[in-house]
Amino acid sequence: MTSKTVITQFFKDLQDSICSELAREDGTGSFQEENWVREGGGGGRSRVMEGGRVFEKAGVNFSAVHGRLPEKIKQSFDVPKDEFYATGISLVLHPCNPYVPIVHMNLRYFELEDRLWFGGGIDLTPHYVNEAEARAFHLGLKAICDRHDSGYYTRFKSWADTYFFIAHRNETRGVGGVFFDRLQAKPGESISSIFEFVKELGLAFTGLYLPMVRTNSVRNFGAAEREWQLLRRSRYVEFNLVYDSGTRFGLETNGRTESILMSLPPLASWKYNVVPLAGSPEALTVSFLRKDIDWTRG
Amino acid sequence: MTSKTVITQFFKDLQDSICSELAREDGTGSFQEENWVREGGGGGRSRVMEGGRVFEKAGVNFSAVHGRLPEKIKQSFDVPKDEFYATGISLVLHPCNPYVPIVHMNLRYFELEDRLWFGGGIDLTPHYVNEAEARAFHLGLKAICDRHDSGYYTRFKSWADTYFFIAHRNETRGVGGVFFDRLQAKPGESISSIFEFVKELGLAFTGLYLPMVRTNSVRNFGAAEREWQLLRRSRYVEFNLVYDSGTRFGLETNGRTESILMSLPPLASWKYNVVPLAGSPEALTVSFLRKDIDWTRG
Repeated sequence: MTSKTVITQFFKDLQDSICSELAREDGTGSFQEENWVREGGGGGRSRVMEGGRVFEKAGVNFSAVHGRLPEKIKQSFDVPKDEFYATGISLVLHPCNPYVPIVHMNLRYFELEDRLWFGGGIDLTPHYVNEAEARAFHLGLKAICDRHDSGYYTRFKSWADTYFFIAHRNETRGVGGVFFDRLQAKPGESISSIFEFVKELGLAFTGLYLPMVRTNSVRNFGAAEREWQLLRRSRYVEFNLVYDSGTRFGLETNGRTESILMSLPPLASWKYNVVPLAGSPEALTVSFLRKDIDWTRG
Repeated sequence: MTSKTVITQFFKDLQDSICSELAREDGTGSFQEENWVREGGGGGRSRVMEGGRVFEKAGVNFSAVHGRLPEKIKQSFDVPKDEFYATGISLVLHPCNPYVPIVHMNLRYFELEDRLWFGGGIDLTPHYVNEAEARAFHLGLKAICDRHDSGYYTRFKSWADTYFFIAHRNETRGVGGVFFDRLQAKPGESISSIFEFVKELGLAFTGLYLPMVRTNSVRNFGAAEREWQLLRRSRYVEFNLVYDSGTRFGLETNGRTESILMSLPPLASWKYNVVPLAGSPEALTVSFLRKDIDWTRG
């Protein structure tokens, strides 16, 4: 029997295990923790590591909030009452080495009266796209999806392409991943079936990401690669502040700003009209920033 | 007789004179120019200086566009036809020295069928607030306003406080300035009266700003002041991407992204929950980032 207590505890434990794995991987950095209380009900536990050996900035948030729906979202739900419960984990990692991709994961559970659903996503944003790594990442996500529903991967991969898109740049944020929202139990099933899927994604996270950290953190890079990293990070800022619905929703509903904006990079750069040299690794990366690439084909 | 040709030429000449004054002040940097054409009609001239001695990044745009109103804005105007003409200048300067404030100016003219109006604003964003400079800046703006309408300064200063506000930080962007929109001629007067006001603002710009550049560019600063500058610049990014209606409108209506985002800083930093030491110059600055400070009183 899956209750909100069980789901909440899972996300909290997941924050613990991910943070301890990341801190071990980093070797020198450690997470600062801050517990916060939400005025309308509930609260959260923000953890951030800054200036590590491997991670320049790593933010891992857990929260469990409840109360009455903010007016702004109430309008999008056709419900007479507005008591909600929401819990989840959300993380963004900005590595030091430009050859290590930025990664994001968010998994969340929502109850609104008798409706229960999960939402979430995992997506990878390499400063330099490595095709083999992008393929392994997508194959890993596909294997998890396939164990739960043969339609999930195609649907959620395409949803991620649409969601993680920077329209004014005509670029995807990176090589994508999976994204889903308002995922409810099928008729006759319980929410447990969806919870099993979400659990597996959460537990797979470090296994999907850390191999890329290990391989690439030791690679040498120079000022040009660092500069490119800072330019790609500014695209990340553009996505999060202009399009990301979680970020915008959080800011508009008076959420905890420091926790919401923990996803923003420690340092980012904007230059006018940078066009990478034809044939360069930077140009190759940009060529991969489009929708509908089937990364599972090798 | 004021025609759109005269107004357009004024903005174009103003871009020329401001750019040459900024380049002279900088001493080593020079503006790169790019002429661009808008698909729906018209175009612009973007000029940017990067990596100067005084200005780390200075973007000065001129544009004159026309055509049919994008559907998105057409809805906000109650007009049967939708032929528009818009011209203006827009600039943001990010100085190297943290003691020199960021500055922004935007002046624009709009024609929609038989309606003609001006909009614009000038506002100052010091990394370190200097009360005497903020006062001189506001007194300068007030003197210009007062020569045209005794109600302008109070109205436009308060409009700037409201407009240049970062709600999720509960901070104004800086010490404000003036802001106005859809400013039309009074009954019985022609648009020339408003044009005279806008002209005077534009021509006063370098006189209002360059003294702060001259005084502060030579001041010594260390790593702590540089870090604070990068943190304040990230607030500028937050404002422009989350709230600035010009930026959002431009991105949503498929404007020229590189020209629109020229306002973003060359380098910016986000750290978790930075709280300046009580009594520090940084804390003093934050204490001034609120609405309704009357800077004209000494």
